[in-house]
Amino acid sequence: MRRVAEKQTASPPSYPAINQRRLMRDLNAIGRIGIGNRGGVTRLVFSIKELRSRQVLIHLMRQAGLKIHIDGIGNIFGRYDGDDARAPAVVAGSHLDTVIHGGKYDGPVGVIGALEAIRTISENNIPVRSPLEVVCFVGEESSRFGFSTLGSSLVAGEVHPKDLAHAVDAQGTKLADVLSSLGISAKNLHGIKRDPKSLKAYLELHIEQGPILEAIGKRIGLVTAIAAPSRFRVIFTGQADHSGTTPMHMRKDALVAAALFIEQVEKICRKYSSMAKGRVVGTVGAMKLEPGVINAVPGRAELQVDIRSTSAQSKARVTRLVKQCAEAIGRKRNLGVETLTIREEDPVPLDKRLLRLTRAICDAKELVYEIMPSGAGHDAMQMAKITPAGMIFIPSQRGISHNPLEWSAPEDIALGTQLLMETMIKVANE
Amino acid sequence: MRRVAEKQTASPPSYPAINQRRLMRDLNAIGRIGIGNRGGVTRLVFSIKELRSRQVLIHLMRQAGLKIHIDGIGNIFGRYDGDDARAPAVVAGSHLDTVIHGGKYDGPVGVIGALEAIRTISENNIPVRSPLEVVCFVGEESSRFGFSTLGSSLVAGEVHPKDLAHAVDAQGTKLADVLSSLGISAKNLHGIKRDPKSLKAYLELHIEQGPILEAIGKRIGLVTAIAAPSRFRVIFTGQADHSGTTPMHMRKDALVAAALFIEQVEKICRKYSSMAKGRVVGTVGAMKLEPGVINAVPGRAELQVDIRSTSAQSKARVTRLVKQCAEAIGRKRNLGVETLTIREEDPVPLDKRLLRLTRAICDAKELVYEIMPSGAGHDAMQMAKITPAGMIFIPSQRGISHNPLEWSAPEDIALGTQLLMETMIKVANE
Repeated sequence: MRRVAEKQTASPPSYPAINQRRLMRDLNAIGRIGIGNRGGVTRLVFSIKELRSRQVLIHLMRQAGLKIHIDGIGNIFGRYDGDDARAPAVVAGSHLDTVIHGGKYDGPVGVIGALEAIRTISENNIPVRSPLEVVCFVGEESSRFGFSTLGSSLVAGEVHPKDLAHAVDAQGTKLADVLSSLGISAKNLHGIKRDPKSLKAYLELHIEQGPILEAIGKRIGLVTAIAAPSRFRVIFTGQADHSGTTPMHMRKDALVAAALFIEQVEKICRKYSSMAKGRVVGTVGAMKLEPGVINAVPGRAELQVDIRSTSAQSKARVTRLVKQCAEAIGRKRNLGVETLTIREEDPVPLDKRLLRLTRAICDAKELVYEIMPSGAGHDAMQMAKITPAGMIFIPSQRGISHNPLEWSAPEDIALGTQLLMETMIKVANE
Repeated sequence: MRRVAEKQTASPPSYPAINQRRLMRDLNAIGRIGIGNRGGVTRLVFSIKELRSRQVLIHLMRQAGLKIHIDGIGNIFGRYDGDDARAPAVVAGSHLDTVIHGGKYDGPVGVIGALEAIRTISENNIPVRSPLEVVCFVGEESSRFGFSTLGSSLVAGEVHPKDLAHAVDAQGTKLADVLSSLGISAKNLHGIKRDPKSLKAYLELHIEQGPILEAIGKRIGLVTAIAAPSRFRVIFTGQADHSGTTPMHMRKDALVAAALFIEQVEKICRKYSSMAKGRVVGTVGAMKLEPGVINAVPGRAELQVDIRSTSAQSKARVTRLVKQCAEAIGRKRNLGVETLTIREEDPVPLDKRLLRLTRAICDAKELVYEIMPSGAGHDAMQMAKITPAGMIFIPSQRGISHNPLEWSAPEDIALGTQLLMETMIKVANE
């Protein structure tokens, strides 16, 4: 499966290989910042560790001779001017912040990969017309303040600074105070939005964070769209009773109702799980029971449901079916049912032309790839709102991510970086 | 439905009525000790409030002219000598301790009811051959130290003092320290066991703590047996995965497996819920999910299951079926399944002859009653091990107990007390 010689195949043009050793050295340097128990990496946004990782990146960008620009929230852009410095730029990157006890590769692969791509282009004087930029977005993970894709949302003009006013982390620290301690005031946040005219495309290399590529034995995934979640609570209200004295036929057990519901969520989602139907996935991930003790019939069950799809239509249909199903169970069992929306987002299609272009490169290199959606959210879904955006996935071992066990093979990281580089060159010269 | 005139019917002998006003006055006096928010009553065993309720009882026993004996753990016996002071005693009672935020009637109805019965017998010089005793057992509820029926277990010789050595409450206070602060040392606990020869019978009046009597419109329940629980944990181990990136067919969702299991527990128990099959009830009351967050497929689900029946055979069969069902679900879905026993107890049949005797009294009084099991545990299940034991239930409004909303009608409490008194007289004179 590991065909390292792929890039030596006949199809012109043949580009020099990226430097896998340097790429992995820099990825590991970033990965050591915030490393803790059992190899878990914690670099929450605006923490000392996360800020240190940005300093290392700035240092690496300087070494590579890039022009550095840091915007009002702290997004870092490292620019390599092409033949036409005034042409719109081809931007590639991702993020360096992590979840709590996360892995080394979710985010950094896209940032350091883009840096390595530009370093290889620069060293080999590969001609590019448009400028190239590496970007490191601030706060892609929602783990600290509840906002995901903070930096890229501001760049895409999708967040209004005042939306951020009330965010607080688990320690009770306000986002506003964190920002002001870093010298960032509300007025810095205006004008972060990037003029779409300054952009030619956005590309993001990322680990899959899922099990598909490994399972089908392919090393590259080309992403069609980013799925979005509908998240809601379902609350069944029955009656809490003594588990010994209440006969079976006199119970209003909220947990049994919840169980019937959970089963149906799986059943319905399976019917909509094909690519054609937008690869719907549905999960009940959390549940709270009251009273929740061994000697009482549960009187209340509160479930958190997450439905995702790359098709807005399928997602809406499944969400509707699932909610109807909850109500039918409640009616049948004479229980109260309530559904409360947590979040409702739209799936983001990525750029078809960019996908075709990357695909053509893969075909020329005889690289076996999978055309697939992204189940997880990424900075690309914000950037897609202001410029054509594309994503390249590499396999995640056992599909594990947001976990110290997150791992991808260095050869796959290098292959993804090579493909990213060749795509950047092609787009820059179009 | 409230036929207060029942006792005036023809059938001899016709006994004087207990004093409902005095009964309710004393019950309310006890009910005010430890009363808190929204009428909840909290008298945890050996707490200041619980000790105060015992003092009030001792005072009431003295007023009634009873001989008081307090044993090594604090069980209080108030004795009324019959015509033959050396005959074995007819003992009736219950407990005064409560759960946290419990009600006024779970326990006190049986203690104050027995006291009122003896007061009425004494005042009216109703001839009784055997001595009569009211008993207040210590610590029937398990809420503080995890032991239920503490006092009656010691009286029945079912607990070895060293079993109690390591008990600790939620505040970290050791039972041993609590006992020594009350002047109770380990050596007090030996010799609490009561000689069965000193006992003729044990009778306990109690609220039903379930919804059956109210639902069928009967004011008296005569108890055949006390159901016992089989309690165990079922743990499904699948794989925690990203809820967005893991396709439906690649999941090992521990919660969906748990849901299928919960449904089957209900289905199996319903098949064994008739009186003839031992009125099995089965409940999944508590569940813990890992990681238990909205954006992850649950990798582990730990359930607490409680199966009860008055038939040891039915309980064993249902427990076996339920566990087999968990394993079948695990096999089918390729998940790990583990079952861990928490507690395994035997149902306790009550005395058939005593039941017939109480039944005859009811028939003579044209009182409509229900022959039924007790789903909850009571001191009677310990006393049944050393003497013939019987229980009388009165309705609980909406079946609610262990809750500030616990309520029974004063007329029903009085009716139960009257029946208790007449049963005590009949047993004492046999």
